[in-house]
Amino acid sequence: MTQMQAARQGTITEEMLIVAQDEGIDVELLRERIAEGRVVIPRNINHPNYYPVGIGEGLRTKTNANIGTSPDHVDLEEELLKVEICERYCADTIMDLSTGGDLDFIRTTILNRWRKPLGTVPVYQVACELLREGKSITEMDPEHLFEVIERQAQQGVDFMTLHCGITRESLRIFVQQKRTCGMVSRGGSLLAHWMAHNRTENPLYEQFDRVLEICSKYDVTISLGDGMRPGAISDAGDAAQWYETSVLGELTLRAWEAGVQVMIEGPGHVPIHHVEAHIKMMKRLCHGAPVYVLGPLTCDIGAGYDHITAAIGGAIAAAAGADFLCYVTPAEHLRLPDPEDVRQGIIAARIAAHSGDIAKGVKGAWERNLEMSKARYRLDWETMFALALDPDKAREYRMLSEDYNKGVCTMCGDFCAYVASMTTERKVSASLTEGAARAEGNEDQQPANLENASLRRLREKLGSVV
Amino acid sequence: MTQMQAARQGTITEEMLIVAQDEGIDVELLRERIAEGRVVIPRNINHPNYYPVGIGEGLRTKTNANIGTSPDHVDLEEELLKVEICERYCADTIMDLSTGGDLDFIRTTILNRWRKPLGTVPVYQVACELLREGKSITEMDPEHLFEVIERQAQQGVDFMTLHCGITRESLRIFVQQKRTCGMVSRGGSLLAHWMAHNRTENPLYEQFDRVLEICSKYDVTISLGDGMRPGAISDAGDAAQWYETSVLGELTLRAWEAGVQVMIEGPGHVPIHHVEAHIKMMKRLCHGAPVYVLGPLTCDIGAGYDHITAAIGGAIAAAAGADFLCYVTPAEHLRLPDPEDVRQGIIAARIAAHSGDIAKGVKGAWERNLEMSKARYRLDWETMFALALDPDKAREYRMLSEDYNKGVCTMCGDFCAYVASMTTERKVSASLTEGAARAEGNEDQQPANLENASLRRLREKLGSVV
Repeated sequence: MTQMQAARQGTITEEMLIVAQDEGIDVELLRERIAEGRVVIPRNINHPNYYPVGIGEGLRTKTNANIGTSPDHVDLEEELLKVEICERYCADTIMDLSTGGDLDFIRTTILNRWRKPLGTVPVYQVACELLREGKSITEMDPEHLFEVIERQAQQGVDFMTLHCGITRESLRIFVQQKRTCGMVSRGGSLLAHWMAHNRTENPLYEQFDRVLEICSKYDVTISLGDGMRPGAISDAGDAAQWYETSVLGELTLRAWEAGVQVMIEGPGHVPIHHVEAHIKMMKRLCHGAPVYVLGPLTCDIGAGYDHITAAIGGAIAAAAGADFLCYVTPAEHLRLPDPEDVRQGIIAARIAAHSGDIAKGVKGAWERNLEMSKARYRLDWETMFALALDPDKAREYRMLSEDYNKGVCTMCGDFCAYVASMTTERKVSASLTEGAARAEGNEDQQPANLENASLRRLREKLGSVV
Repeated sequence: MTQMQAARQGTITEEMLIVAQDEGIDVELLRERIAEGRVVIPRNINHPNYYPVGIGEGLRTKTNANIGTSPDHVDLEEELLKVEICERYCADTIMDLSTGGDLDFIRTTILNRWRKPLGTVPVYQVACELLREGKSITEMDPEHLFEVIERQAQQGVDFMTLHCGITRESLRIFVQQKRTCGMVSRGGSLLAHWMAHNRTENPLYEQFDRVLEICSKYDVTISLGDGMRPGAISDAGDAAQWYETSVLGELTLRAWEAGVQVMIEGPGHVPIHHVEAHIKMMKRLCHGAPVYVLGPLTCDIGAGYDHITAAIGGAIAAAAGADFLCYVTPAEHLRLPDPEDVRQGIIAARIAAHSGDIAKGVKGAWERNLEMSKARYRLDWETMFALALDPDKAREYRMLSEDYNKGVCTMCGDFCAYVASMTTERKVSASLTEGAARAEGNEDQQPANLENASLRRLREKLGSVV
């Protein structure tokens, strides 16, 4: 039974209990949303030592990190280091996009290390296995594709990007757009190439029931891939993209009928003033299914810093209702990310997700910022490190500061605004209290002692330079 | 005569001509906006070798980089390296916020190296000079403050942050807010501390005409400082902030009357769903004067990565009408930025500004992205580097790629989506053309040869793996 089927029957699974607890929401509400398809828990019954993560309406916005080898760079140790980084810096899910080396071995190794949901793009493995035989993707036998999907499902993959919405009609519309950057979805472009070459309909669309059968059996969540994802802001929101999205909406209803969990993949590159509209239309066309975006990048010229470009679009997307952000690393558009890129990408995505969560009113988001700001005002560095999204980085920067032992930082040094501000607050409050006392003829009322313990500690540290 | 006075008289200055040319807009329109105060050209008549930059409505969103020494870290060579970085990575303005060493010497040295607008916060120098005499800011003689403003104006400083809007009334409102982070404006908190200690009105407010006299004489643009800038999202948009903003609006009208150019400084930390409202209300309360924001940061917990947190808010602010973004570096909240932090901060701010410019429809913004995307689709790396905001970084990442000589990148390697997409486009187009030909009974019409030169070059490079 899938999580969705259980939810519909009124069963609260162990996974639901953990997710509800982690999110601080009512488990019955969570169950309802899973039953309705508005929340997914990607959880393959074969994933060993699995720890559940919920994605969707009312939950914390989740972040995914893509890792994996490429044909020219195969180093399993490096990939496992990336897995460690994903753990340390709190990615919610990993996608193993390996296209080099022994893919089954790499995947099962990662599945044994990574407890939270793991995703893949099965068509990559098909292309790799064909390449090894000296064949092109155009020679793919659709049976091979289904066999790989089942093989990966059997191994325990929790969610799979399947480009089921690329149809011959969507390709017809696509070529009419004369896009700047064509198709930039790697899996989508492989499948489209096969379709164009063989003048054949997409097997994942034609035989969608077969896809559902496998996914239902292992409870694989389908991440309905966006082959028409725009890879340039000038391509965003064109007819090909929306046609495919509406096909994904149809397939979503069919998946739900079969009790299969579904997410919808989205852009890509989108100009900033269109991001909100994109997310709202995706949610509308796909009946409230969780939306999983890659970026979106709000401009095309940030090469080397596209984790930032993506964080801008991702934050706006999250605030507008996107549920799941795929990270983008500084290496995007240039090369395969290395472990440091992975760390940068995770934190950038988490900043975006968290900024969106504040707007969404996700439980605990506001409070964490409040605690951070309180710690900041009392110059309580250890609490600041603990609350920062990357405590290691915050500490490292702080340690480089020559003022480390002075309490304040080298930014302001002796002219610390916090210290001046606290003194000002105390003095203005005192003068207002005195004024009020005089007005009431109550001359012997003294100014309130507003100097609390942390302020006292600070003043001891800093002396009285301000 | 100030740029504003000239504009009002119908005079087109050399500075206006250059700005109009650089921005690709009509110089008469620019003159009108300067006359109305909607655009400023911060240009001190004493700045040697000056190159003009316009800030405001209809112009490219500008970015500022803060540099400068601190009491515990004085290294002029390092500051000059930061100036070089600002040139190389295209910051539009610099603020010298030095608070350590010989401030006059540091400033005049920078003014001789940096041709574009240079800004300062004069009260810092006052505080430093008092500290050197063993005195606290509370002992400041207001005459000293005016003397420093005039001294810096005489040296050629193009714009100055002056916290003229902190009044006794704003401090009364401030203490009632019981803010999480109090005042985080360093200059503002110094002045407020002086006011609170001496129970006196702000001399920059009380003697605003004297401020205007100096600024008019040298054409110093006043950056009306926001002493009540929120330093925590929980403090954003409170009564103290808006009271001060409305005071800045009053002062803006008085400055315009005196022919003095004005910008309005803004937040700070603001939750993502309030950023647009903040910018629109600032523009409204301050009569369309250019808005200069620091961030805003959309959450408080990004320490070590606050250039990203600021880029999210800055991009939304720019799209909503902010004209000028002060960069935030990864060192923000932790320590004084080093040269690499400066580079990171500049590029993050430029990504934000550029993302906003696309929404604003600023001339050339869309086109640059289009050219980038076209280059990307034809895998033309040299053009991509040239169009990237940081060509050095893009090239450096690319050079590390093991696929450098293969044309594609290690992200997809042999499975390059662009190549598959181009082939798909060609094949689908051909099949549609054939279909159309058959439908018309025009049997001998052949598929159009859609294979252009760049595609041919690519295919030669890549063989036929896809």
